[in-house]
Amino acid sequence: MKFLTMHTVILATVAILVFSSPAIAQDIQPASETAGFVFNSSMLLISGLAMMFMAAGFCLLQVGLAQSKNAATICLNTIAVVSIAGIMFWLTGYNILYNVPVDGLLTPFMEWWIWQPGIATEQTGSGHSSHASWYFQMVFAVIVASIVAGALAERIKFWSFLVFTIFLTGFVYPIQASWEWGQGYLHTTWQFADFAGSTLIHSTGGWAVLAGVIILGPRTRYVGTRTDRRPASSVPLATLGTFILWLGWFGINGGSRMAAGSTEDILAISQIFVNTNASAAAGVLAALVLTSVLYKKVEATAVLYGAIGGLVSISAEPLMPAIWQSLVIGAVGGAIVTLAIPLLDRFRIDDAVGAISAHLLCGIWGTLVVVWSNNSTTTSDNAPSIVGQLIGIIMIGVFVFTVSSLIWLILKHTIGIRVISKQELSGLDGTESHQETVRNSPAQMRQPGEIR
Amino acid sequence: MKFLTMHTVILATVAILVFSSPAIAQDIQPASETAGFVFNSSMLLISGLAMMFMAAGFCLLQVGLAQSKNAATICLNTIAVVSIAGIMFWLTGYNILYNVPVDGLLTPFMEWWIWQPGIATEQTGSGHSSHASWYFQMVFAVIVASIVAGALAERIKFWSFLVFTIFLTGFVYPIQASWEWGQGYLHTTWQFADFAGSTLIHSTGGWAVLAGVIILGPRTRYVGTRTDRRPASSVPLATLGTFILWLGWFGINGGSRMAAGSTEDILAISQIFVNTNASAAAGVLAALVLTSVLYKKVEATAVLYGAIGGLVSISAEPLMPAIWQSLVIGAVGGAIVTLAIPLLDRFRIDDAVGAISAHLLCGIWGTLVVVWSNNSTTTSDNAPSIVGQLIGIIMIGVFVFTVSSLIWLILKHTIGIRVISKQELSGLDGTESHQETVRNSPAQMRQPGEIR
Amino acid sequence: MKFLTMHTVILATVAILVFSSPAIAQDIQPASETAGFVFNSSMLLISGLAMMFMAAGFCLLQVGLAQSKNAATICLNTIAVVSIAGIMFWLTGYNILYNVPVDGLLTPFMEWWIWQPGIATEQTGSGHSSHASWYFQMVFAVIVASIVAGALAERIKFWSFLVFTIFLTGFVYPIQASWEWGQGYLHTTWQFADFAGSTLIHSTGGWAVLAGVIILGPRTRYVGTRTDRRPASSVPLATLGTFILWLGWFGINGGSRMAAGSTEDILAISQIFVNTNASAAAGVLAALVLTSVLYKKVEATAVLYGAIGGLVSISAEPLMPAIWQSLVIGAVGGAIVTLAIPLLDRFRIDDAVGAISAHLLCGIWGTLVVVWSNNSTTTSDNAPSIVGQLIGIIMIGVFVFTVSSLIWLILKHTIGIRVISKQELSGLDGTESHQETVRNSPAQMRQPGEIR
Repeated sequence: MKFLTMHTVILATVAILVFSSPAIAQDIQPASETAGFVFNSSMLLISGLAMMFMAAGFCLLQVGLAQSKNAATICLNTIAVVSIAGIMFWLTGYNILYNVPVDGLLTPFMEWWIWQPGIATEQTGSGHSSHASWYFQMVFAVIVASIVAGALAERIKFWSFLVFTIFLTGFVYPIQASWEWGQGYLHTTWQFADFAGSTLIHSTGGWAVLAGVIILGPRTRYVGTRTDRRPASSVPLATLGTFILWLGWFGINGGSRMAAGSTEDILAISQIFVNTNASAAAGVLAALVLTSVLYKKVEATAVLYGAIGGLVSISAEPLMPAIWQSLVIGAVGGAIVTLAIPLLDRFRIDDAVGAISAHLLCGIWGTLVVVWSNNSTTTSDNAPSIVGQLIGIIMIGVFVFTVSSLIWLILKHTIGIRVISKQELSGLDGTESHQETVRNSPAQMRQPGEIR
Repeated sequence: MKFLTMHTVILATVAILVFSSPAIAQDIQPASETAGFVFNSSMLLISGLAMMFMAAGFCLLQVGLAQSKNAATICLNTIAVVSIAGIMFWLTGYNILYNVPVDGLLTPFMEWWIWQPGIATEQTGSGHSSHASWYFQMVFAVIVASIVAGALAERIKFWSFLVFTIFLTGFVYPIQASWEWGQGYLHTTWQFADFAGSTLIHSTGGWAVLAGVIILGPRTRYVGTRTDRRPASSVPLATLGTFILWLGWFGINGGSRMAAGSTEDILAISQIFVNTNASAAAGVLAALVLTSVLYKKVEATAVLYGAIGGLVSISAEPLMPAIWQSLVIGAVGGAIVTLAIPLLDRFRIDDAVGAISAHLLCGIWGTLVVVWSNNSTTTSDNAPSIVGQLIGIIMIGVFVFTVSSLIWLILKHTIGIRVISKQELSGLDGTESHQETVRNSPAQMRQPGEIR
Repeated sequence: MKFLTMHTVILATVAILVFSSPAIAQDIQPASETAGFVFNSSMLLISGLAMMFMAAGFCLLQVGLAQSKNAATICLNTIAVVSIAGIMFWLTGYNILYNVPVDGLLTPFMEWWIWQPGIATEQTGSGHSSHASWYFQMVFAVIVASIVAGALAERIKFWSFLVFTIFLTGFVYPIQASWEWGQGYLHTTWQFADFAGSTLIHSTGGWAVLAGVIILGPRTRYVGTRTDRRPASSVPLATLGTFILWLGWFGINGGSRMAAGSTEDILAISQIFVNTNASAAAGVLAALVLTSVLYKKVEATAVLYGAIGGLVSISAEPLMPAIWQSLVIGAVGGAIVTLAIPLLDRFRIDDAVGAISAHLLCGIWGTLVVVWSNNSTTTSDNAPSIVGQLIGIIMIGVFVFTVSSLIWLILKHTIGIRVISKQELSGLDGTESHQETVRNSPAQMRQPGEIR
């Protein structure tokens, strides 16, 4: 202030009034508000893009781990899942998730809006585009269903899986997610904390898988007491899939901030990137060291699982932990997957791609550890508690497992869920058909890779 | 306003004058202008990145559908196409596209600037970086040529294809695109509407393919009246390619807005994302259901085509349709591909990757349906009409098909366009060579995967 | 200005004072500052994402070029490298790189902060998030180590490579990078110019490879005077890898601007995109034409190397060159790779993926050519000189080659660096194990693709 005159006092008053006047404020603030709105919406769109690529990541991981005779079927499952989730989340999912009453458990289905599919009208005051938010949220449903797609591969009937996906993405996933992200019961009563889906996405996928594999039964690969070892058909494709998942996870965890337009928001997202990467890296190294110590060798696939385990574990709270805490969280996640996969195999819980270990168990671990990593910085009033986290895990587990089991059982006793043994042995790509006789008819299309 | 004194009136006047004064305004507004400029340019760069990945997507889709003995040749074609398009669009393409006279048909080639390759000087007043815009536009040329690369695979001579690509990306594509995006004849006289290239990109690629396959003739895979069925060599790679294309399409359709820096723009882009995804999903499900009904089985490749069909169909107008309209547009697109591929095969129009069905036919469908989806919200004066759309489709079709045919014919009668039958049967990867005798000389490089 | 009264003069004074008053300025400017901060940080995060995908790109390129019996080992190496680099760059790397004294050569290791791993505290005045910057910088260490991973494939011991990676990413890379990017000796005394790592990243990786291949010795594929030709196991995967690298390079070169929030910055990034693409395209076409002329055939893999050569060459200065200069720089880079690979092979410098040719030699070329492309626009005082560039290249070369050799030699005489010949012949995927006897024990995990 070079011109310190007696006018300064007047000017200060002028300035305060100028800037506190709403009429004037509109001339200045919108620039900032607009930028914030664009930042937030862009971030959701870009995060959604990175996350949507994860569908391809899951597909490749599953194709790489499975036998090549089922590869085309897994691909078909994945692209069908993306499409069904995209439509169901519009028909019912989004409304169910975000219209649950505060502290409630279920959206009142009878109200008019549930029968009016769609996305809320754009409200510029909301800080981001509703459509961008919808796109971002929709991909979560895609991810949940993609987890299920792989685990049941190699023996499930294609159409039964599609029907299950309709219910999973349109109802099961959004109902339980509404309890937390829709400001429902778990959020309000229990301060349940799950920032980016350790429980709401990954455990939910894992519970649906668990119900499925129990009712579906294991693949015919157990001879007496021994398991028939099946080589991964393509470690490179599985590795590419894992890298794609790793990258998409920055979208999940960063995007879940739902805002990027302020210094505070972008600092949070940057911290989330660093923690997410640390947890994944620690998961890889934990799996690497643990398999070396236990089995005296390193398996590429075990290490890929280690990355997924680390990433699932950090998802419940990727912002608050210090970097060393993120390393610990991820390392434990990597260890859980490494130990759980052979254990589940011993109990003949036959999960073709380790989804129960990586998504369900690490999801539970990640949700519980929030109490440790979050405690220091949050005030005690709304800090997550071990009881609240446990109640959330159990409520969602019981709900998803029960409803999924019900759907699988109904499907089993109607259209059937398992291909016949001959089909399973010769591979689903060649035989999973509803009318085998058409197979060699001239009417068939020329493109191969078909699921007959 | 806590200090409501008599000074308020004066202050209000002060404020109005302060903010209406241009001299002062420059202190405030540039922040917003700068942000807008950065938003717009960043969006073009990021969209361009996502779109450029589509070259890899086309490559993988084509490799996955073709026979493995031609895989390296297809890869070589794709990476050469990206490079040639990148240089030709600088040498001539960009200038041809954006210097056409208003309501004109052809850039005056004799003017100095056409011989001065390059990108327009940066003008900060334009709202975005010219170089960012150039990069974004250049990728369109890459995509057009990538469509052609795959369809003619498995029998075309490598060098002939490269020469064709030079003309396609440097002249044919930009001339017809200038009629619409360069504010030329179709835009001005006919209010032709093609927001993101259903006709300008996809049909153009499709017409070039059609000219090529007719002059080139079908692959030697027809035995009497039957078609020799050829399995896709890798459904997983084709699926990965399709997912990459799906993602890149958000770049095409969203980026074609050419601006992201205002609330209106980002709302439009968000809506475009939702509609684009809906159309792709509907294309997948239409192909899924239709193949099940018609052929009593589901083919993975048919479903991949369904996604492409849906995406091409929504490209002409991805903003205006309601979501349910996007679903209808995509479903019809998916159905068109599903029905057209075996039909074209019956007529022995041998398009190795279904490009004519997916890009040409769905491109026409998408361009026509704009009249339906766009009508409600646009004033009648500049709303697209069915006549205008048809004239655009026909003009571009006649132009591209004629010029492409001419180029193919000249190539056929000079350097030749088709490999000899022996080469075709043993695969292009091993035999497409201009001097077979060098093959075993010690001078040859050690890297394999060569195109000899 | 409709109200031109005598008050205008007063008002102008008011306005000037209002906007020059710091107290008031904080009410207005932060919007712009915030936007700039968010732009810069977002750009670093998004660039980092694109670059991190390059780890998968290197993996696929290397898997595609190598023999399939070593594919799983290469995948394992890559994902381990990403994890180790991620942790080492936190433990020591970042501090070493950015705490070197001005004009210095080595961070004082004894100071407290070097033993306190981590990332600098966030400073909002710095223009971007420290965590975003850390994430971006960390990926550079990943890339350096990824270059090494592939070149030594097919005969190196897994654990020895991991130990080397710890030293490379935690010490060797950051020490030499601090001389330039940490404002150390080369930057201050010699005005050494390496914008995005032609020398600091690519040559560094290349020198580490050169030390490795000399000490490790060639693969057992030389029979008398002839080289045993080994086909690339998958040209499609190698091509996909190359496309991913090409895309990630926009992140490297664009992101190295470290700012995107002003018109000047985004114009620079846009120009960088165009130049980077031009150089890659020219590298492809140079390799295409040169192999045709020299060997009378075109090899897909040679063309892929051409792209990498072009990209490495433009990295030292991607902003200043005109487009035609970028084309020249890239074309020479493509030619260097094309000629160097068979030459090195003749000298039995056995680099499994051409890393020495593509990264070391093109890195040197790119660093030298800065003097030509940069001269016109920079004032003579701080323009890079040919002497300064040579000193930088030599200093870094001597340092990295010497230290790497030392590490390799120590490893060779302790835990060993080369697998036994039998293992090499049967492929590392099946035999690279530390306790062969466990192989068939029931304790082993079921997942295959293992590195035993």
